[in-house]
Amino acid sequence: MRRSDRLIGMTHYILEHPLELISLPFFSSRYNAAKSSISEDLAIINRMFKKEGIGYVESVPGAAGGIRYLPQYDEDQSLEFVNSLAKRLEDPERILPGGYLFMSDILGEPITVRQLGRLFATAFAPLNIDVVMTVATKGIPLAYAVASFLNVPVVIVRRDPKVTEGSTVSINYVSGSSRKIQTMVLTKRSLKQGATVCIIDDFMKAGGTIDGMKSLLKEFDATVAAIGVLAEAEDEEDERIITDYTSLLQISNVDEKNKHIEVKKGNFFTTD
Amino acid sequence: MRRSDRLIGMTHYILEHPLELISLPFFSSRYNAAKSSISEDLAIINRMFKKEGIGYVESVPGAAGGIRYLPQYDEDQSLEFVNSLAKRLEDPERILPGGYLFMSDILGEPITVRQLGRLFATAFAPLNIDVVMTVATKGIPLAYAVASFLNVPVVIVRRDPKVTEGSTVSINYVSGSSRKIQTMVLTKRSLKQGATVCIIDDFMKAGGTIDGMKSLLKEFDATVAAIGVLAEAEDEEDERIITDYTSLLQISNVDEKNKHIEVKKGNFFTTD
Repeated sequence: MRRSDRLIGMTHYILEHPLELISLPFFSSRYNAAKSSISEDLAIINRMFKKEGIGYVESVPGAAGGIRYLPQYDEDQSLEFVNSLAKRLEDPERILPGGYLFMSDILGEPITVRQLGRLFATAFAPLNIDVVMTVATKGIPLAYAVASFLNVPVVIVRRDPKVTEGSTVSINYVSGSSRKIQTMVLTKRSLKQGATVCIIDDFMKAGGTIDGMKSLLKEFDATVAAIGVLAEAEDEEDERIITDYTSLLQISNVDEKNKHIEVKKGNFFTTD
Repeated sequence: MRRSDRLIGMTHYILEHPLELISLPFFSSRYNAAKSSISEDLAIINRMFKKEGIGYVESVPGAAGGIRYLPQYDEDQSLEFVNSLAKRLEDPERILPGGYLFMSDILGEPITVRQLGRLFATAFAPLNIDVVMTVATKGIPLAYAVASFLNVPVVIVRRDPKVTEGSTVSINYVSGSSRKIQTMVLTKRSLKQGATVCIIDDFMKAGGTIDGMKSLLKEFDATVAAIGVLAEAEDEEDERIITDYTSLLQISNVDEKNKHIEVKKGNFFTTD
Protein backbone atom coordinates (compact mmCIF):
# COMPACT_ATOMS: atom_id res chain seq x y z
CA MET A 1 0.00 0.00 0.00
CA ARG A 2 1.20 3.48 -0.82
CA ARG A 3 2.22 5.96 1.86
CA SER A 4 -0.59 8.33 0.87
CA ASP A 5 -3.21 5.60 1.41
CA ARG A 6 -1.66 4.53 4.69
CA LEU A 7 -1.61 8.10 6.02
CA ILE A 8 -5.35 8.44 5.40
CA GLY A 9 -6.19 5.11 7.02
CA MET A 10 -3.87 5.67 9.99
CA THR A 11 -5.14 9.22 10.55
CA HIS A 12 -8.70 7.90 10.75
CA TYR A 13 -7.75 5.03 13.03
CA ILE A 14 -5.70 7.20 15.39
CA LEU A 15 -8.42 9.86 15.63
CA GLU A 16 -10.98 7.21 16.57
CA HIS A 17 -8.74 5.72 19.28
CA PRO A 18 -7.40 8.57 21.41
CA LEU A 19 -5.17 7.74 24.40
CA GLU A 20 -5.11 4.09 23.36
CA LEU A 21 -1.75 2.35 23.10
CA ILE A 22 -1.41 1.18 19.50
CA SER A 23 1.52 -1.06 18.63
CA LEU A 24 3.56 -0.50 15.48
CA PRO A 25 3.12 -4.16 14.43
CA PHE A 26 -0.65 -3.53 14.45
CA PHE A 27 -0.28 -0.86 11.78
CA SER A 28 2.39 -2.92 9.98
CA SER A 29 0.04 -5.83 9.47
CA ARG A 30 -3.05 -3.70 8.90
CA TYR A 31 -1.37 -1.81 6.08
CA ASN A 32 1.16 -4.45 5.05
CA ALA A 33 4.14 -2.16 5.50
CA ALA A 34 7.55 -2.33 7.16
CA LYS A 35 7.85 -1.05 10.73
CA SER A 36 10.30 1.60 9.53
CA SER A 37 7.75 2.95 7.04
CA ILE A 38 5.09 3.04 9.75
CA SER A 39 7.47 4.98 12.00
CA GLU A 40 8.00 7.55 9.27
CA ASP A 41 4.22 7.78 8.70
CA LEU A 42 3.70 8.41 12.39
CA ALA A 43 6.30 11.19 12.40
CA ILE A 44 4.45 12.89 9.54
CA ILE A 45 1.09 12.45 11.28
CA ASN A 46 2.50 13.82 14.54
CA ARG A 47 3.92 16.90 12.79
CA MET A 48 0.68 17.57 10.92
CA PHE A 49 -1.57 17.03 13.97
CA LYS A 50 0.50 19.66 15.81
CA LYS A 51 0.24 22.02 12.87
CA GLU A 52 -3.56 21.55 12.75
CA GLY A 53 -3.76 22.15 16.50
CA ILE A 54 -5.48 18.85 17.27
CA GLY A 55 -2.89 17.24 19.54
CA TYR A 56 0.10 14.99 19.03
CA VAL A 57 1.23 11.39 18.72
CA GLU A 58 3.49 10.27 21.54
CA SER A 59 5.89 7.32 21.44
CA VAL A 60 5.65 4.79 24.24
CA PRO A 61 9.01 3.00 24.39
CA GLY A 62 9.68 -0.60 25.37
CA ALA A 63 8.74 -4.08 24.20
CA ALA A 64 5.05 -3.49 24.93
CA GLY A 65 5.31 0.00 23.48
CA GLY A 66 3.81 1.78 20.55
CA ILE A 67 2.14 5.12 20.11
CA ARG A 68 -0.68 7.07 21.76
CA TYR A 69 -2.66 9.97 20.38
CA LEU A 70 -3.09 12.80 22.86
CA PRO A 71 -6.01 14.94 21.67
CA GLN A 72 -5.49 18.63 22.31
CA TYR A 73 -7.01 21.89 21.34
CA ASP A 74 -4.56 24.53 20.17
CA GLU A 75 -4.53 27.54 22.56
CA ASP A 76 -5.31 30.26 20.02
CA GLN A 77 -8.07 28.25 18.37
CA SER A 78 -9.65 27.30 21.68
CA LEU A 79 -9.66 30.90 22.89
CA GLU A 80 -11.27 31.99 19.65
CA PHE A 81 -13.84 29.21 19.95
CA VAL A 82 -14.73 30.01 23.57
CA ASN A 83 -14.91 33.75 22.93
CA SER A 84 -17.35 33.24 20.07
CA LEU A 85 -19.39 30.92 22.31
CA ALA A 86 -19.41 33.55 25.08
CA LYS A 87 -20.70 36.11 22.59
CA ARG A 88 -23.55 33.82 21.54
CA LEU A 89 -24.48 33.20 25.18
CA GLU A 90 -24.53 36.90 26.08
CA ASP A 91 -27.84 37.26 24.23
CA PRO A 92 -30.28 38.50 26.94
CA GLU A 93 -33.03 36.36 25.39
CA ARG A 94 -31.21 33.41 26.91
CA ILE A 95 -31.84 34.44 30.51
CA LEU A 96 -34.11 31.91 32.21
CA PRO A 97 -35.89 32.21 35.57
CA GLY A 98 -33.63 31.51 38.53
CA GLY A 99 -30.43 32.80 36.97
CA TYR A 100 -30.12 29.94 34.50
CA LEU A 101 -29.23 30.31 30.85
CA PHE A 102 -30.80 28.74 27.78
CA MET A 103 -27.98 26.69 26.27
CA SER A 104 -29.88 23.72 24.79
CA ASP A 105 -29.44 24.93 21.21
CA ILE A 106 -25.67 25.14 21.62
CA LEU A 107 -25.53 21.83 23.48
CA GLY A 108 -27.58 20.39 20.62
CA GLU A 109 -24.87 21.04 18.06
CA PRO A 110 -22.70 17.94 17.76
CA ILE A 111 -19.71 19.81 16.31
CA THR A 112 -19.77 22.42 19.10
CA VAL A 113 -20.15 19.73 21.75
CA ARG A 114 -17.23 17.80 20.27
CA GLN A 115 -15.07 20.92 20.41
CA LEU A 116 -16.02 21.38 24.06
CA GLY A 117 -15.14 17.76 24.69
CA ARG A 118 -11.76 18.24 23.05
CA LEU A 119 -11.12 21.27 25.27
CA PHE A 120 -11.80 19.37 28.48
CA ALA A 121 -9.77 16.43 27.19
CA THR A 122 -6.83 18.79 26.67
CA ALA A 123 -6.86 19.44 30.42
CA PHE A 124 -7.82 15.97 31.64
CA ALA A 125 -5.97 13.59 29.29
CA PRO A 126 -2.91 13.26 31.59
CA LEU A 127 -5.04 12.26 34.62
CA ASN A 128 -5.61 8.58 33.73
CA ILE A 129 -9.36 8.90 33.99
CA ASP A 130 -11.26 5.56 34.05
CA VAL A 131 -14.75 6.90 33.58
CA VAL A 132 -16.70 10.13 32.99
CA MET A 133 -19.71 10.74 35.21
CA THR A 134 -22.60 13.14 34.78
CA VAL A 135 -26.13 13.59 36.02
CA ALA A 136 -29.15 13.44 33.72
CA THR A 137 -30.05 15.24 31.53
CA LYS A 138 -28.30 18.30 30.18
CA GLY A 139 -24.74 17.24 30.95
CA ILE A 140 -25.02 13.99 29.01
CA PRO A 141 -23.91 15.19 25.54
CA LEU A 142 -20.94 17.01 27.03
CA ALA A 143 -19.96 13.98 29.10
CA TYR A 144 -19.96 11.77 25.98
CA ALA A 145 -17.89 14.27 24.06
CA VAL A 146 -15.26 14.37 26.81
CA ALA A 147 -15.36 10.58 27.15
CA SER A 148 -14.91 10.05 23.42
CA PHE A 149 -11.65 12.04 23.52
CA LEU A 150 -10.52 10.30 26.71
CA ASN A 151 -11.65 6.96 25.25
CA VAL A 152 -13.41 5.90 28.45
CA PRO A 153 -17.02 4.99 29.30
CA VAL A 154 -19.72 7.30 30.66
CA VAL A 155 -21.92 6.61 33.67
CA ILE A 156 -25.08 8.58 34.18
CA VAL A 157 -26.47 9.39 37.60
CA ARG A 158 -30.27 9.70 37.66
CA ARG A 159 -32.51 11.91 39.71
CA ASP A 160 -35.34 9.47 39.07
CA PRO A 161 -35.08 6.32 41.18
CA LYS A 162 -37.89 4.63 39.25
CA VAL A 163 -35.60 3.42 36.49
CA THR A 164 -35.40 -0.35 36.64
CA GLU A 165 -31.81 -1.37 36.21
CA GLY A 166 -31.28 -3.60 39.20
CA SER A 167 -29.92 -2.60 42.59
CA THR A 168 -28.86 1.00 43.09
CA VAL A 169 -26.94 3.22 45.46
CA SER A 170 -28.73 6.44 46.27
CA ILE A 171 -27.88 9.50 48.32
CA ASN A 172 -29.77 12.56 49.43
CA TYR A 173 -28.14 15.93 49.00
CA VAL A 174 -29.02 19.56 49.51
CA SER A 175 -29.25 21.52 46.32
CA GLY A 176 -26.98 24.52 46.86
CA SER A 177 -29.22 27.10 45.25
CA SER A 178 -32.72 25.93 46.10
CA ARG A 179 -31.81 24.43 49.51
CA LYS A 180 -34.12 21.54 48.76
CA ILE A 181 -33.30 17.96 49.60
CA GLN A 182 -32.94 15.93 46.44
CA THR A 183 -32.06 12.34 45.59
CA MET A 184 -29.44 10.94 43.25
CA VAL A 185 -29.25 7.33 42.13
CA LEU A 186 -26.61 5.23 40.46
CA THR A 187 -27.05 1.63 39.37
CA LYS A 188 -24.58 -0.54 41.27
CA ARG A 189 -23.28 -2.42 38.28
CA SER A 190 -22.62 0.71 36.27
CA LEU A 191 -19.45 1.66 38.17
CA LYS A 192 -16.58 -0.50 39.42
CA GLN A 193 -15.19 0.08 42.89
CA GLY A 194 -12.14 2.34 43.11
CA ALA A 195 -12.39 4.04 39.73
CA THR A 196 -10.73 7.34 38.85
CA VAL A 197 -13.57 9.59 37.79
CA CYS A 198 -14.03 12.82 35.89
CA ILE A 199 -17.31 14.64 36.71
CA ILE A 200 -18.82 16.69 33.88
CA ASP A 201 -21.84 19.01 33.99
CA ASP A 202 -23.22 21.82 31.90
CA PHE A 203 -23.87 24.42 34.58
CA MET A 204 -22.69 25.05 38.13
CA LYS A 205 -24.17 27.50 40.56
CA ALA A 206 -23.35 26.79 44.20
CA GLY A 207 -22.23 23.30 43.24
CA GLY A 208 -24.74 21.22 45.19
CA THR A 209 -25.33 18.78 42.37
CA ILE A 210 -21.63 18.17 41.86
CA ASP A 211 -21.16 17.82 45.60
CA GLY A 212 -23.92 15.21 45.52
CA MET A 213 -22.08 13.28 42.82
CA LYS A 214 -18.91 13.42 44.94
CA SER A 215 -20.80 11.93 47.90
CA LEU A 216 -22.24 9.23 45.69
CA LEU A 217 -18.76 8.41 44.39
CA LYS A 218 -17.51 7.90 47.95
CA GLU A 219 -19.92 4.95 48.16
CA PHE A 220 -18.01 3.41 45.24
CA ASP A 221 -14.58 4.20 46.75
CA ALA A 222 -13.91 6.27 43.66
CA THR A 223 -11.36 9.06 43.28
CA VAL A 224 -12.57 12.30 41.74
CA ALA A 225 -9.63 13.32 39.57
CA ALA A 226 -11.33 16.17 37.70
CA ILE A 227 -14.48 18.24 37.65
CA GLY A 228 -15.40 20.06 34.46
CA VAL A 229 -18.33 22.43 33.94
CA LEU A 230 -19.19 24.26 30.76
CA ALA A 231 -20.44 27.36 32.57
CA GLU A 232 -20.22 28.53 36.17
CA ALA A 233 -22.40 31.25 37.65
CA GLU A 234 -19.88 33.69 39.11
CA ASP A 235 -22.55 35.48 41.13
CA GLU A 236 -22.82 32.38 43.31
CA GLU A 237 -19.09 32.27 44.06
CA ASP A 238 -19.47 33.15 47.76
CA GLU A 239 -21.77 30.23 48.41
CA ARG A 240 -19.81 27.73 46.38
CA ILE A 241 -19.12 24.41 48.03
CA ILE A 242 -16.99 23.08 45.16
CA THR A 243 -13.62 24.76 44.78
CA ASP A 244 -11.51 22.50 42.62
CA TYR A 245 -13.02 22.51 39.13
CA THR A 246 -12.39 23.56 35.56
CA SER A 247 -14.88 25.89 33.86
CA LEU A 248 -14.85 26.96 30.24
CA LEU A 249 -17.19 29.93 30.76
CA GLN A 250 -18.09 32.26 33.61
CA ILE A 251 -21.51 33.87 33.73
CA SER A 252 -21.95 36.99 35.84
CA ASN A 253 -24.19 39.97 36.54
CA VAL A 254 -27.31 38.16 35.42
CA ASP A 255 -30.04 40.78 35.62
CA GLU A 256 -33.40 39.21 34.79
CA LYS A 257 -35.23 42.51 35.13
CA ASN A 258 -33.05 44.61 32.88
CA LYS A 259 -32.21 41.70 30.58
CA HIS A 260 -28.49 41.90 30.97
CA ILE A 261 -25.84 39.21 31.26
CA GLU A 262 -22.08 38.91 31.00
CA VAL A 263 -20.27 35.83 29.78
CA LYS A 264 -16.50 35.51 29.79
CA LYS A 265 -13.97 32.73 29.54
CA GLY A 266 -13.70 30.38 32.50
CA ASN A 267 -10.81 29.36 34.75
CA PHE A 268 -9.62 26.85 32.13
CA PHE A 269 -7.93 29.83 30.50
CA THR A 270 -6.84 31.76 33.57
CA THR A 271 -5.27 29.18 35.87
CA ASP A 272 -2.06 27.47 35.04
CA MET B 1 2.69 21.98 1.82
CA ARG B 2 3.47 18.40 0.88
CA ARG B 3 0.77 16.00 -0.30
CA SER B 4 1.34 13.74 2.70
CA ASP B 5 0.67 16.62 5.11
CA ARG B 6 -2.38 17.76 3.18
CA LEU B 7 -3.87 14.27 3.15
CA ILE B 8 -3.69 14.09 6.96
CA GLY B 9 -5.20 17.54 7.44
CA MET B 10 -7.92 17.00 4.85
CA THR B 11 -8.80 13.56 6.22
CA HIS B 12 -9.33 15.06 9.66
CA TYR B 13 -11.33 18.00 8.32
CA ILE B 14 -13.57 15.83 6.15
CA LEU B 15 -14.24 13.33 8.94
CA GLU B 16 -15.29 16.17 11.27
CA HIS B 17 -17.67 17.66 8.66
CA PRO B 18 -19.80 14.85 7.23
CA LEU B 19 -22.48 15.71 4.65
CA GLU B 20 -21.24 19.29 4.53
CA LEU B 21 -20.53 20.83 1.14
CA ILE B 22 -16.86 21.80 1.15
CA SER B 23 -15.55 23.84 -1.78
CA LEU B 24 -12.23 23.03 -3.42
CA PRO B 25 -11.05 26.65 -3.05
CA PHE B 26 -11.52 26.22 0.72
CA PHE B 27 -8.97 23.41 0.77
CA SER B 28 -6.78 25.24 -1.78
CA SER B 29 -6.39 28.24 0.47
CA ARG B 30 -6.25 26.25 3.70
CA TYR B 31 -3.36 24.14 2.42
CA ASN B 32 -1.92 26.60 -0.10
CA ALA B 33 -2.19 24.16 -3.00
CA ALA B 34 -3.46 24.23 -6.59
CA LYS B 35 -7.03 23.10 -7.20
CA SER B 36 -5.72 20.27 -9.36
CA SER B 37 -3.59 18.95 -6.49
CA ILE B 38 -6.57 19.14 -4.15
CA SER B 39 -8.66 17.17 -6.67
CA GLU B 40 -6.02 14.46 -6.76
CA ASP B 41 -5.89 14.41 -2.97
CA LEU B 42 -9.65 13.98 -2.79
CA ALA B 43 -9.52 11.06 -5.24
CA ILE B 44 -6.98 9.33 -3.02
CA ILE B 45 -9.04 10.03 0.10
CA ASN B 46 -12.21 8.75 -1.59
CA ARG B 47 -10.49 5.52 -2.64
CA MET B 48 -9.01 4.92 0.81
CA PHE B 49 -12.25 5.73 2.67
CA LYS B 50 -14.00 3.09 0.55
CA LYS B 51 -11.22 0.63 1.26
CA GLU B 52 -11.48 1.28 5.00
CA GLY B 53 -15.26 0.87 4.82
CA ILE B 54 -16.03 4.30 6.29
CA GLY B 55 -17.92 5.86 3.39
CA TYR B 56 -16.97 7.93 0.37
CA VAL B 57 -16.36 11.45 -0.89
CA GLU B 58 -18.85 12.58 -3.50
CA SER B 59 -18.33 15.39 -6.02
CA VAL B 60 -21.00 18.06 -6.20
CA PRO B 61 -20.68 19.66 -9.66
CA GLY B 62 -21.38 23.28 -10.59
CA ALA B 63 -20.14 26.74 -9.71
CA ALA B 64 -21.30 26.38 -6.09
CA GLY B 65 -20.02 22.81 -6.03
CA GLY B 66 -17.38 20.99 -4.09
CA ILE B 67 -17.29 17.71 -2.23
CA ARG B 68 -19.34 16.01 0.47
CA TYR B 69 -18.34 13.16 2.72
CA LEU B 70 -21.01 10.45 3.00
CA PRO B 71 -20.26 8.43 6.12
CA GLN B 72 -21.03 4.76 5.73
CA TYR B 73 -20.40 1.55 7.50
CA ASP B 74 -19.12 -1.27 5.33
CA GLU B 75 -21.63 -4.15 5.19
CA ASP B 76 -19.34 -6.95 6.37
CA GLN B 77 -17.89 -4.87 9.19
CA SER B 78 -21.31 -3.68 10.34
CA LEU B 79 -22.70 -7.22 10.39
CA GLU B 80 -19.71 -8.36 12.41
CA PHE B 81 -20.15 -5.44 14.80
CA VAL B 82 -23.88 -6.02 15.30
CA ASN B 83 -23.46 -9.77 15.74
CA SER B 84 -20.87 -9.24 18.47
CA LEU B 85 -23.19 -6.73 20.11
CA ALA B 86 -26.08 -9.22 19.97
CA LYS B 87 -23.88 -11.81 21.65
CA ARG B 88 -23.02 -9.43 24.48
CA LEU B 89 -26.70 -8.60 24.97
CA GLU B 90 -27.81 -12.24 25.11
CA ASP B 91 -26.34 -12.50 28.60
CA PRO B 92 -29.36 -13.47 30.78
CA GLU B 93 -27.99 -11.27 33.59
CA ARG B 94 -29.16 -8.36 31.47
CA ILE B 95 -32.86 -9.18 31.75
CA LEU B 96 -34.67 -6.45 33.68
CA PRO B 97 -38.21 -6.49 35.09
CA GLY B 98 -40.86 -5.77 32.48
CA GLY B 99 -39.04 -7.29 29.54
CA TYR B 100 -36.38 -4.59 29.37
CA LEU B 101 -32.71 -5.19 28.90
CA PHE B 102 -29.75 -3.68 30.73
CA MET B 103 -27.82 -1.87 27.99
CA SER B 104 -26.41 1.11 29.90
CA ASP B 105 -22.88 -0.28 29.93
CA ILE B 106 -22.88 -0.68 26.16
CA LEU B 107 -24.54 2.71 25.64
CA GLY B 108 -21.85 4.11 27.94
CA GLU B 109 -19.03 3.19 25.57
CA PRO B 110 -18.33 6.17 23.29
CA ILE B 111 -16.66 4.05 20.57
CA THR B 112 -19.59 1.61 20.45
CA VAL B 113 -22.10 4.43 20.40
CA ARG B 114 -20.23 6.13 17.58
CA GLN B 115 -20.30 2.91 15.56
CA LEU B 116 -24.05 2.67 16.12
CA GLY B 117 -24.38 6.27 15.00
CA ARG B 118 -22.41 5.53 11.86
CA LEU B 119 -24.70 2.58 11.11
CA PHE B 120 -27.87 4.67 11.34
CA ALA B 121 -26.21 7.43 9.32
CA THR B 122 -25.50 4.89 6.56
CA ALA B 123 -29.26 4.42 6.21
CA PHE B 124 -30.38 7.99 6.86
CA ALA B 125 -27.71 10.16 5.16
CA PRO B 126 -29.65 10.43 1.85
CA LEU B 127 -32.83 11.69 3.59
CA ASN B 128 -31.80 15.34 4.07
CA ILE B 129 -32.49 15.23 7.79
CA ASP B 130 -32.57 18.66 9.50
CA VAL B 131 -32.58 17.51 13.09
CA VAL B 132 -32.38 14.36 15.24
CA MET B 133 -34.93 14.03 18.02
CA THR B 134 -34.94 11.77 21.05
CA VAL B 135 -36.60 11.58 24.44
CA ALA B 136 -34.65 11.82 27.68
CA THR B 137 -32.66 9.93 28.92
CA LYS B 138 -31.29 6.72 27.47
CA GLY B 139 -31.62 7.62 23.80
CA ILE B 140 -29.54 10.79 24.15
CA PRO B 141 -26.05 9.35 23.48
CA LEU B 142 -27.29 7.45 20.45
CA ALA B 143 -29.09 10.52 19.10
CA TYR B 144 -25.88 12.57 19.35
CA ALA B 145 -23.87 9.87 17.62
CA VAL B 146 -26.32 9.76 14.72
CA ALA B 147 -26.46 13.56 14.59
CA SER B 148 -22.69 13.88 14.53
CA PHE B 149 -22.53 11.73 11.39
CA LEU B 150 -25.47 13.55 9.82
CA ASN B 151 -23.97 16.88 10.94
CA VAL B 152 -27.28 18.20 12.27
CA PRO B 153 -28.46 19.34 15.73
CA VAL B 154 -30.23 17.24 18.37
CA VAL B 155 -33.42 18.20 20.19
CA ILE B 156 -34.39 16.43 23.37
CA VAL B 157 -37.98 15.85 24.40
CA ARG B 158 -38.48 15.76 28.15
CA ARG B 159 -40.86 13.78 30.27
CA ASP B 160 -40.41 16.32 33.03
CA PRO B 161 -42.29 19.56 32.39
CA LYS B 162 -40.61 21.29 35.32
CA VAL B 163 -37.57 22.26 33.30
CA THR B 164 -37.48 26.02 32.90
CA GLU B 165 -36.59 26.81 29.34
CA GLY B 166 -39.38 29.15 28.35
CA SER B 167 -42.65 28.25 26.67
CA THR B 168 -43.22 24.64 25.74
CA VAL B 169 -45.49 22.42 23.68
CA SER B 170 -46.68 19.34 25.52
CA ILE B 171 -48.79 16.34 24.61
CA ASN B 172 -50.26 13.44 26.51
CA TYR B 173 -49.83 9.98 25.10
CA VAL B 174 -50.63 6.44 26.11
CA SER B 175 -47.58 4.33 26.80
CA GLY B 176 -48.04 1.25 24.64
CA SER B 177 -46.77 -1.28 27.14
CA SER B 178 -47.97 0.11 30.48
CA ARG B 179 -51.18 1.70 29.09
CA LYS B 180 -50.52 4.69 31.33
CA ILE B 181 -51.09 8.26 30.24
CA GLN B 182 -47.80 10.12 30.14
CA THR B 183 -46.67 13.60 29.20
CA MET B 184 -44.00 14.75 26.79
CA VAL B 185 -42.67 18.28 26.54
CA LEU B 186 -40.58 20.15 24.01
CA THR B 187 -39.37 23.72 24.38
CA LYS B 188 -40.86 25.84 21.60
CA ARG B 189 -37.66 27.51 20.58
CA SER B 190 -35.76 24.25 20.29
CA LEU B 191 -37.35 23.21 16.97
CA LYS B 192 -38.15 25.28 13.88
CA GLN B 193 -41.51 24.78 12.14
CA GLY B 194 -41.50 22.38 9.20
CA ALA B 195 -38.26 20.53 9.93
CA THR B 196 -37.39 17.11 8.52
CA VAL B 197 -36.78 14.97 11.57
CA CYS B 198 -35.10 11.67 12.41
CA ILE B 199 -36.37 10.09 15.65
CA ILE B 200 -33.85 7.98 17.58
CA ASP B 201 -34.41 5.84 20.66
CA ASP B 202 -32.64 3.02 22.41
CA PHE B 203 -35.50 0.58 22.89
CA MET B 204 -38.94 0.07 21.35
CA LYS B 205 -41.65 -2.19 22.68
CA ALA B 206 -45.13 -1.35 21.41
CA GLY B 207 -43.85 2.02 20.22
CA GLY B 208 -45.96 4.34 22.41
CA THR B 209 -43.09 6.66 23.19
CA ILE B 210 -42.15 7.04 19.55
CA ASP B 211 -45.80 7.55 18.63
CA GLY B 212 -45.89 10.29 21.26
CA MET B 213 -42.89 11.98 19.64
CA LYS B 214 -44.66 11.79 16.27
CA SER B 215 -47.72 13.52 17.73
CA LEU B 216 -45.54 16.18 19.28
CA LEU B 217 -43.83 16.75 15.93
CA LYS B 218 -47.19 17.36 14.27
CA GLU B 219 -47.50 20.45 16.47
CA PHE B 220 -44.31 21.73 14.85
CA ASP B 221 -45.46 20.84 11.29
CA ALA B 222 -42.46 18.57 11.10
CA THR B 223 -41.95 15.63 8.74
CA VAL B 224 -40.72 12.39 10.27
CA ALA B 225 -38.31 11.10 7.65
CA ALA B 226 -36.80 8.28 9.67
CA ILE B 227 -37.19 6.37 12.93
CA GLY B 228 -34.24 4.45 14.29
CA VAL B 229 -34.17 2.24 17.36
CA LEU B 230 -31.21 0.31 18.67
CA ALA B 231 -33.31 -2.64 19.85
CA GLU B 232 -36.92 -3.65 19.29
CA ALA B 233 -38.77 -6.17 21.43
CA GLU B 234 -40.06 -8.67 18.88
CA ASP B 235 -42.45 -10.21 21.41
CA GLU B 236 -44.48 -7.00 21.25
CA GLU B 237 -44.80 -7.06 17.49
CA ASP B 238 -48.56 -7.75 17.51
CA GLU B 239 -49.30 -4.67 19.57
CA ARG B 240 -46.95 -2.39 17.69
CA ILE B 241 -48.34 0.96 16.66
CA ILE B 242 -45.20 2.04 14.81
CA THR B 243 -44.52 0.17 11.59
CA ASP B 244 -42.03 2.18 9.62
CA TYR B 245 -38.75 2.12 11.53
CA THR B 246 -35.19 0.86 11.34
CA SER B 247 -33.90 -1.41 14.11
CA LEU B 248 -30.35 -2.66 14.54
CA LEU B 249 -31.28 -5.45 16.96
CA GLN B 250 -34.33 -7.61 17.64
CA ILE B 251 -34.91 -9.01 21.10
CA SER B 252 -37.21 -11.99 21.46
CA ASN B 253 -38.31 -14.80 23.75
CA VAL B 254 -37.44 -12.90 26.89
CA ASP B 255 -38.06 -15.33 29.71
CA GLU B 256 -37.51 -13.64 33.06
CA LYS B 257 -38.22 -16.80 35.00
CA ASN B 258 -35.89 -19.14 33.19
CA LYS B 259 -33.37 -16.41 32.47
CA HIS B 260 -33.35 -16.78 28.73
CA ILE B 261 -33.22 -14.22 25.96
CA GLU B 262 -32.54 -14.14 22.23
CA VAL B 263 -30.96 -11.23 20.40
CA LYS B 264 -30.55 -11.13 16.66
CA LYS B 265 -29.89 -8.50 14.04
CA GLY B 266 -32.66 -6.02 13.29
CA ASN B 267 -34.53 -5.05 10.14
CA PHE B 268 -31.65 -2.73 9.14
CA PHE B 269 -30.01 -5.88 7.79
CA THR B 270 -33.04 -7.69 6.39
CA THR B 271 -34.92 -5.01 4.47
CA ASP B 272 -33.59 -3.03 1.57
